[in-house]
Amino acid sequence: MRIGLCGFGKTGRPVARTILQDRDSRLEWVIRRSVHASRGPLADQIERSNSGNSRIFTASNMPIDALLDMYPVDVIIDFSGVDGLSYYGEAAARRAVRIVSAVSSYPSEHQDILRELSTQTPVLWSPNITLGVNLMILAANLLQMIAPLADVEIVEEHFRLKKGVSNTAKIIAQSLGVLEGDIKSLRAGGIVGTHEVVFGFPSQTVRLRHESVSPEAFGEGALFAAKRMETLAPGLYTMEDLLIPSFIENARKLQPRLFAVNS
Amino acid sequence: MRIGLCGFGKTGRPVARTILQDRDSRLEWVIRRSVHASRGPLADQIERSNSGNSRIFTASNMPIDALLDMYPVDVIIDFSGVDGLSYYGEAAARRAVRIVSAVSSYPSEHQDILRELSTQTPVLWSPNITLGVNLMILAANLLQMIAPLADVEIVEEHFRLKKGVSNTAKIIAQSLGVLEGDIKSLRAGGIVGTHEVVFGFPSQTVRLRHESVSPEAFGEGALFAAKRMETLAPGLYTMEDLLIPSFIENARKLQPRLFAVNS
Amino acid sequence: MRIGLCGFGKTGRPVARTILQDRDSRLEWVIRRSVHASRGPLADQIERSNSGNSRIFTASNMPIDALLDMYPVDVIIDFSGVDGLSYYGEAAARRAVRIVSAVSSYPSEHQDILRELSTQTPVLWSPNITLGVNLMILAANLLQMIAPLADVEIVEEHFRLKKGVSNTAKIIAQSLGVLEGDIKSLRAGGIVGTHEVVFGFPSQTVRLRHESVSPEAFGEGALFAAKRMETLAPGLYTMEDLLIPSFIENARKLQPRLFAVNS
Amino acid sequence: MRIGLCGFGKTGRPVARTILQDRDSRLEWVIRRSVHASRGPLADQIERSNSGNSRIFTASNMPIDALLDMYPVDVIIDFSGVDGLSYYGEAAARRAVRIVSAVSSYPSEHQDILRELSTQTPVLWSPNITLGVNLMILAANLLQMIAPLADVEIVEEHFRLKKGVSNTAKIIAQSLGVLEGDIKSLRAGGIVGTHEVVFGFPSQTVRLRHESVSPEAFGEGALFAAKRMETLAPGLYTMEDLLIPSFIENARKLQPRLFAVNS
Repeated sequence: MRIGLCGFGKTGRPVARTILQDRDSRLEWVIRRSVHASRGPLADQIERSNSGNSRIFTASNMPIDALLDMYPVDVIIDFSGVDGLSYYGEAAARRAVRIVSAVSSYPSEHQDILRELSTQTPVLWSPNITLGVNLMILAANLLQMIAPLADVEIVEEHFRLKKGVSNTAKIIAQSLGVLEGDIKSLRAGGIVGTHEVVFGFPSQTVRLRHESVSPEAFGEGALFAAKRMETLAPGLYTMEDLLIPSFIENARKLQPRLFAVNS
Repeated sequence: MRIGLCGFGKTGRPVARTILQDRDSRLEWVIRRSVHASRGPLADQIERSNSGNSRIFTASNMPIDALLDMYPVDVIIDFSGVDGLSYYGEAAARRAVRIVSAVSSYPSEHQDILRELSTQTPVLWSPNITLGVNLMILAANLLQMIAPLADVEIVEEHFRLKKGVSNTAKIIAQSLGVLEGDIKSLRAGGIVGTHEVVFGFPSQTVRLRHESVSPEAFGEGALFAAKRMETLAPGLYTMEDLLIPSFIENARKLQPRLFAVNS
Repeated sequence: MRIGLCGFGKTGRPVARTILQDRDSRLEWVIRRSVHASRGPLADQIERSNSGNSRIFTASNMPIDALLDMYPVDVIIDFSGVDGLSYYGEAAARRAVRIVSAVSSYPSEHQDILRELSTQTPVLWSPNITLGVNLMILAANLLQMIAPLADVEIVEEHFRLKKGVSNTAKIIAQSLGVLEGDIKSLRAGGIVGTHEVVFGFPSQTVRLRHESVSPEAFGEGALFAAKRMETLAPGLYTMEDLLIPSFIENARKLQPRLFAVNS
Repeated sequence: MRIGLCGFGKTGRPVARTILQDRDSRLEWVIRRSVHASRGPLADQIERSNSGNSRIFTASNMPIDALLDMYPVDVIIDFSGVDGLSYYGEAAARRAVRIVSAVSSYPSEHQDILRELSTQTPVLWSPNITLGVNLMILAANLLQMIAPLADVEIVEEHFRLKKGVSNTAKIIAQSLGVLEGDIKSLRAGGIVGTHEVVFGFPSQTVRLRHESVSPEAFGEGALFAAKRMETLAPGLYTMEDLLIPSFIENARKLQPRLFAVNS
């Protein structure tokens, strides 16, 4: 799978690292906003993986069509910001290059653009693109459907300077019918990011907890999405769209294990 | 639902309390091993709920058929021990009274008896009959099926004097392909009971944790089972048999929530 | 130690049970508000421990001086309500009977009464009389003094119906300089009570967590206090007053263990 | 404070980053084993902070005395391996340069060398040099001294490939009288490092939990130690030696807060 990466900042860099380590993928190029020369071991590694050509370009100096002519890709992974879409969106859709965007929020006009692009190519947008968070959200929803009377509380913990309630916690809350104002947000030190859903029953408690260890989780999630989208028709997808079929398919395979244990 | 309860010990008593509080159920009688007179507020409450007749009997003084003639029931809930089955089993099966047994382990010959009885009436056996633990087990199995490469660790915590690894932890381990010897058992003070499954990914961790608050959880689980079994054909069931259809049915209803959040 | 217990409600009863189990103590009497006859296994047990005399009295029928004349005690443990104090306070102080009150909050005029009584006898008041919570509070305060720059967050979890922020959490918050409005309160199912203090450092997190298992913890705390007060002069004390000398004394005995490990 | 750093590997590099960010410190040089040229943003940053001179040297090409003549330091911080000591030890002691070693374990002959060097200069050795872990160890010891009857369990969690029980957990176990074989070790995914001490009481549980967020914690601990040692006489110290006086001093300042809360 040939990948173009949009964004080379705090999250884009570990994502590049994850792509470089993946055997089935090839990081064709990185496009970034800054005109500063990119140096350092990660830039070196990207250069080496491309036979000595630096493949880190600045958006303002490199038209997207020229870039895609020189170095075609199967998928563009976007960890930049709201504006990245206007750089690559139209060209990617025209060429049927899949789009995976992890931009944390888009104004509604950009969401309209996503929808339009998705008529020509598969587009996935997930503001919380880690596999673990999305598995947790779906498992929590499933538990709530089965035990609708349980009380639900949501706690999220992040580093001191993070402003506002985390977007991921908002999505969890919305999906479980919890008011955004009822989310409990802790801010302390350098906590990377933790989300916990507490189900309270009269005589027992069930907790689902997701702890982020490092931002490489985003790269792993984006690669998972890029691969799964290979067989999909054009359309607008979320991580949940990719995972729900697995939930259904595997739920069908669930087996009682008890008697196996005892016999 | 008319209920007969077998067992009036440390767990049987809170189960009786839970049944008395349930609007849809009626505790017809309690059968116990000890010949000591039962006194105290719980015995009083059982008496009051039956128009002033004490309905707590001792197995050795009360033949099961006489008991079922006087006070017929729809289901027998068994929190006694291995021997309870030989008291009520044959009579219950003959009369098509449903059986819910929460006895924590049966020798294989008793398991054979369960299977035989189950040709005549629905029989459920669950050594860990709480709703929460079984939901957790199924959710953990589902996550593992979807993310089979994640590392899995199991931790259980119980009160100081609990001997051996908890049966529930063994069932969790077996279902997830973890060796029984790899379960981590903590014993400290008066902890009622905690089970945690840790899924380790390279850059993130997902934890499922079940905490028992009080033994009433067993009564809630038994009532849930007794009600669900109302529509079932004769056969041998576990809690998981009752819950898996809910998992499948609800997994089908899972919906991506993302765009709803943002629009 | 001869003990009189004031209050025989939801918390008073398990406290009575704890006192009955303590080898060094003797439950001389219980005084309660309700005129209903007390029955049940706990009442039986109290009766048996006093050679067959029921020793559960109703405040309105039993003048405190008559009670103390018949059955003198060394300490009165109060788990009743605000009003208990007016029943026994003056008589206890006059007879130099120690007072341990676990009433959760007193209006300021009752606090004045406590102060006055404490000129004649040792009086301890603690709205959160468990040993564990008080140890946690002191340890958290000590850590904050040593690492004053760490961020601090406080989370408390209780059963669904508990109203308002827990008093214990308020005391923790006040002691650590956290605003009461910044406490995060979760309400779910039947959680008995959990308090967690999170210290956030840039690259690490330290958590202190207290989990209540059962209300017997209050009895254990009250007995601990009653015994420690045996050697104290009249005065007004808190649990912290009893524990701080232990902190100081034991902090002096702290030893570096490293070289012992390696040699 | 002028600092020389020994070791520029997986832990040494984030330590260098922490030193560069500290206002009161100056990273004079780094000594490393590898002869490969050091490049990348961190090397650039070290160069810039020293007016354009690269200050990363290879041990085999740079005699320690020449290095200390050119660029004198107040303290050497060692995150290399067992062998680092033979490079800088004797020269540092002769020049009264303080030594802070975070090497995770030393054979006994190297421990003897440490002792000898410490007759000339203050030497601190801590295989677990984070502030948080050491605070947790001391707090746990203090709680155990005050509540010696509580059950104690120790759990440590680390990334999948970590071999053996963590050294830190061993030190915790030793200090609390827990057998090394009773430590519960979890290995899952990429968990940076978690240590938990569980105190079990009959009716309550107290947990102390330390979670490592990133290896910068080691740098913070080393800087803390280097600064505290400024006023110390020659001798062999551990992190606990530096922290215990704070524990004693602050324990003396502990205040009951109750009545302040209520008045």
